[in-house]
Amino acid sequence: MRKEFRELASPESVHETIESLDLTGDPKRVPLRAARGRVLAERLDAPIDVPGFDRASVDGYAVKARDTFGATETDPVELDRVGTIHAGTEPETEIESGECVAISTGAVLPAGADAVVMVERTDERDGRVELRTSAAPGKRVMAAGTDIAAGERALGPGTRLTTREIGLLSALGVSEVPVVGAPRVGIISTGEELVRPGKPLNSAAGQIYDVNSYTIAAGVEAAGGTVERYPHTGDDYEEMERVLRQAANECDLVVSSGSTSAGAVDVVYRVLEQEGELLVHGVAVKPGKPMLVGEFENAAYVGLPGYPVSALTIFDTFLAPAIRRAAGQPTPRTTTITGRMAHRERYSEGRLRLLPVGLVESGSDETRAVDTTASDDTVSEIGLDGELLVYPVDKGSGATTSLVEADGVVEMHPDTHEISTGERVEVSLFSPAVRPPSVFGVGEDDPAFSELLDRIDRPRYLGMGSQAGRRRLRNGVVDVAVITSGTVSTAASADEDDLESSLTAALGFEATLLGGWTREWGLVVPAGNPADVTGLADLVDRKLRFVNRTTDSGLRATLTNAIDALAAERSESPQACIDSIDGFEFAVRAHESPVQSVRDGTAAVGLGLRSTADRLDVGFVPVGTERVFVLAHPDRTDKDGVTALGAALSAAGVGINTDSTAASAITDADSFDDRPGYDRL
Amino acid sequence: MRKEFRELASPESVHETIESLDLTGDPKRVPLRAARGRVLAERLDAPIDVPGFDRASVDGYAVKARDTFGATETDPVELDRVGTIHAGTEPETEIESGECVAISTGAVLPAGADAVVMVERTDERDGRVELRTSAAPGKRVMAAGTDIAAGERALGPGTRLTTREIGLLSALGVSEVPVVGAPRVGIISTGEELVRPGKPLNSAAGQIYDVNSYTIAAGVEAAGGTVERYPHTGDDYEEMERVLRQAANECDLVVSSGSTSAGAVDVVYRVLEQEGELLVHGVAVKPGKPMLVGEFENAAYVGLPGYPVSALTIFDTFLAPAIRRAAGQPTPRTTTITGRMAHRERYSEGRLRLLPVGLVESGSDETRAVDTTASDDTVSEIGLDGELLVYPVDKGSGATTSLVEADGVVEMHPDTHEISTGERVEVSLFSPAVRPPSVFGVGEDDPAFSELLDRIDRPRYLGMGSQAGRRRLRNGVVDVAVITSGTVSTAASADEDDLESSLTAALGFEATLLGGWTREWGLVVPAGNPADVTGLADLVDRKLRFVNRTTDSGLRATLTNAIDALAAERSESPQACIDSIDGFEFAVRAHESPVQSVRDGTAAVGLGLRSTADRLDVGFVPVGTERVFVLAHPDRTDKDGVTALGAALSAAGVGINTDSTAASAITDADSFDDRPGYDRL
Repeated sequence: MRKEFRELASPESVHETIESLDLTGDPKRVPLRAARGRVLAERLDAPIDVPGFDRASVDGYAVKARDTFGATETDPVELDRVGTIHAGTEPETEIESGECVAISTGAVLPAGADAVVMVERTDERDGRVELRTSAAPGKRVMAAGTDIAAGERALGPGTRLTTREIGLLSALGVSEVPVVGAPRVGIISTGEELVRPGKPLNSAAGQIYDVNSYTIAAGVEAAGGTVERYPHTGDDYEEMERVLRQAANECDLVVSSGSTSAGAVDVVYRVLEQEGELLVHGVAVKPGKPMLVGEFENAAYVGLPGYPVSALTIFDTFLAPAIRRAAGQPTPRTTTITGRMAHRERYSEGRLRLLPVGLVESGSDETRAVDTTASDDTVSEIGLDGELLVYPVDKGSGATTSLVEADGVVEMHPDTHEISTGERVEVSLFSPAVRPPSVFGVGEDDPAFSELLDRIDRPRYLGMGSQAGRRRLRNGVVDVAVITSGTVSTAASADEDDLESSLTAALGFEATLLGGWTREWGLVVPAGNPADVTGLADLVDRKLRFVNRTTDSGLRATLTNAIDALAAERSESPQACIDSIDGFEFAVRAHESPVQSVRDGTAAVGLGLRSTADRLDVGFVPVGTERVFVLAHPDRTDKDGVTALGAALSAAGVGINTDSTAASAITDADSFDDRPGYDRL
Repeated sequence: MRKEFRELASPESVHETIESLDLTGDPKRVPLRAARGRVLAERLDAPIDVPGFDRASVDGYAVKARDTFGATETDPVELDRVGTIHAGTEPETEIESGECVAISTGAVLPAGADAVVMVERTDERDGRVELRTSAAPGKRVMAAGTDIAAGERALGPGTRLTTREIGLLSALGVSEVPVVGAPRVGIISTGEELVRPGKPLNSAAGQIYDVNSYTIAAGVEAAGGTVERYPHTGDDYEEMERVLRQAANECDLVVSSGSTSAGAVDVVYRVLEQEGELLVHGVAVKPGKPMLVGEFENAAYVGLPGYPVSALTIFDTFLAPAIRRAAGQPTPRTTTITGRMAHRERYSEGRLRLLPVGLVESGSDETRAVDTTASDDTVSEIGLDGELLVYPVDKGSGATTSLVEADGVVEMHPDTHEISTGERVEVSLFSPAVRPPSVFGVGEDDPAFSELLDRIDRPRYLGMGSQAGRRRLRNGVVDVAVITSGTVSTAASADEDDLESSLTAALGFEATLLGGWTREWGLVVPAGNPADVTGLADLVDRKLRFVNRTTDSGLRATLTNAIDALAAERSESPQACIDSIDGFEFAVRAHESPVQSVRDGTAAVGLGLRSTADRLDVGFVPVGTERVFVLAHPDRTDKDGVTALGAALSAAGVGINTDSTAASAITDADSFDDRPGYDRL
């Protein structure tokens, strides 16, 4: 069994420990073209005068200033033009009193001249130039070294090289720039079950794709480090020691992430304890308990938790700032915003909790958030004025979709046991570029609707099923929910003309109907329907192995309703019918999943849509149609993303209450009723 | 002569024209490791279920849930352990009722099992496992496809791939990612006088280093484009056409910048007009009049002004947003801040002006800004409360140091003729990472002080001379000024004990003395002093060719004072002495410049410091010492950067009124009095 962590270090002490480690890479010289974003390792003085010569600032005539004194528009001075000087050429003559030369902007002022008169104030005829203005010495001339003189401090050490500093460096003729070395970070992925993306996966043997190596590598690069990867290692002590030693000798920092494979973390721990120095073993942060910090062979070592969200959270919190510091990269500008909790969140583990959260902009009008302390059906409205709602995203158990469904983190201090609904919280965004989605929806997954989302900029839609959509829309967390008729049974028989109000009545709360369609559902069978399935009755009577959808799915609700009807026809109890179906509880999550089960022989019949069956070339036995509704929260109908969704629905021929002008701008949308099994309401 | 621009396009119409051009690169596939920062070209559905199997979420025992029903701490259930399953291995057995298998986090749930009981709630003895809790079906199991199921929409088109999306892509096993192609931008540098950094420069022939190719390339890359460079071209029509055509065929956008060499811009213009399509010829923006926009061979073409600051301003304003859009990169978060003008700025050219400005944070207390509309010596205080002061940085004439001395741009609308002192202005920062300098100083250049600046994080110091320092400190624009005793003559003889008040009296305004030192000055001569120069008298009497410093220099003021003294000794007029010096008005800008003139024979004697002469190995004839004072604006003494400067001065042994504790933290500073010619006050 794994070692129990004795005493968890405080987050502050872990920050201090990591700060005390030297992650600095060796300074290096990079070509000017590759210097952008790097940090100057040493002070840089100008090696030359810029400009390197007295330079004409305008097109005109180089003169002896004294010769022009007294010249005016009405009483010009005349000089002999004795030559012409273009930029990039060496003056051939020195000018004497009474003479001038034509000169281009940027050209070298000839010997004898000390000013330039701009061409607009002159007239030239037959080698004689009339100057209609006088010029003081130095006029329209940029003297050598005026921009910067040789020996002047040009840029200080630690200067971050942006486009602008690149400009000064090039003006100085610097072609190689001494920059702070990027910390070299070695990434060791541990875990026998990990497979590199792109390689085939043996799921039956519990293999999964390696996530942490890629996220941590991307995080290291974003923070200004460079990445070396070290091959997967098992839990053999000698092998782990060898790999750790190689990485430590080649890098400034070695990072590994916890593995779910038994023993690997223990082995790293033992190697560190016996061959290096273990400085931190566990930190009082959720997630992050299993964090390790140590030193090994002159390199720093940090062990991160195994779950991707946890690993990245701990990386962002403790390691990224240290890498940025070592790389000389600036701390990103503050990326904290304030919002209100959409749900109550309780917590009592006595550790600092870094809670991943998603954001949704409430409408410009007052909106509401549910107080979940009230009884389940009571919605207590909380005044919010176009603010941000913050909802926890915590699927746990290593879900990788949480990575992209969260926008930032809320810190819950160890002595905070609860954040109430509506309470103000500070959210640390994952990056300054993070913005809340344009529209946030939850509900039924529908292949046509899913494609429609591609027409909208930055939508977030979680296909958690009709039940979840209904709940979250009621609670005012989402902008939009997608719900099937099976979930709101009364609506299925409602008068079309008054669909919205009958839906509202059936749901028990107000909602604005943005769109709706019907889709044909039925039984998915192998191509050619070898078992000759004809309908639901075969499921009940013939013990065909069935694959259902999960309980939150609206399609499953529709199936259940259909079985109820079948039972009523037969004067049987619905439960008896359900119990006769082999695999009614064998549920999978998405439209393609039953098809795959049917294809690989795990099941003979699956629940599905005609459109999915057609697309994936399997057989389909139609059972019925169900209606799908897109409902918006009434306070959010003016939100840009909701309007855009409405327009996209209209463009696809399934919009209701939506602006047809906006829809007409979307010219290339596929109409829903061109899809197999789909139709307008 | 160059063509006059007929009608300048409005900035809005230029934006529209550029928006109408297609800069989009071809979509491409990049390896997952190179995908960070790129933008997804197409929607991506999950190709597999994640996880691909029913997965244990904890270490424990896989069981049939039904077998555990009724188990409690006091009344546990006992099962036979029939095996062990580690992560990454395939279960060998199906479990039957009454059986369980030990299972690791992440391992495959064996057939027959439908729940996991965590190890903490169990005891195992001799193959028998006691379960002290019951488990519902599905408990501690992450079902296949729960994270994301095959066919579900994973990421929409246009998604910017951050660390987090990389995580989801790797979980899905995606090793190559379809991304929006980076716009390919061809950069043509025009101008015979331009030399590539790193190559030798012939200043006498008016050569300068190419700046725009490098800044624009860096700007293109920062905006998400890729750069192709095309060789310098002269002003030959055929050659220009050939290069333009090649660039246009290989790129989505071709950019050139104006050249100071006569004709090159005209040639580009003629090629565009004759062989392509010219859409914009001149924009009503200062700087930007000579901007060109057109199309050539299916590529877009933009011609930028020639001066580096102008080229980059026009690039940032018009081109960078278009490149970002084509690359699918997000518009940077708003980077506009508000400040108050430190000077009055007038303008009357009737074009939108993009005025480069620098920023300085005023102290936390009320500070003052000068109202330059008042008579020159009146300082009218304007209430500012720890705000940002904004001052124009506009050296003009192609200065490249302006690139790094400005922090952003203030837009002056065509009908704005003046921004008053203290007026609120919006500053568009060059990037969100821009921060005002920690300390802003202007004044005498001093080699030892210049090195001291390396100890401070993000200082900005302009070595514009003592006179400029004095002016700007009085006006409340700078935090700190460095001024020589020659500039404040009464202070030179003041009682050391009351230096600050006598300085204040001499300056005519209050200032806090942070530090001071003396430096030995004199005449720089060739090594070995071949002309046997002994002092100032030789300059006056022997017609030695002299090189002076510019009038703003405190060192020159000290020289002038010394000549006054010499004249008094001789009972001559100071002007007569000055007139006798050959080259008194031959002035150069920095400490090393006179040395270079002496070295290259342009002058026989130069004005300089012992420390510079020693360092550059030339001869030195001492004349005297002068005192140098570092003075802070009294309202800014608590500013972090000012405190840090004080500490650094103390660490170097020349601090006054500064915190010695902070100084002691700086352990490796060189003491000023270890430098040749330097001493403490």
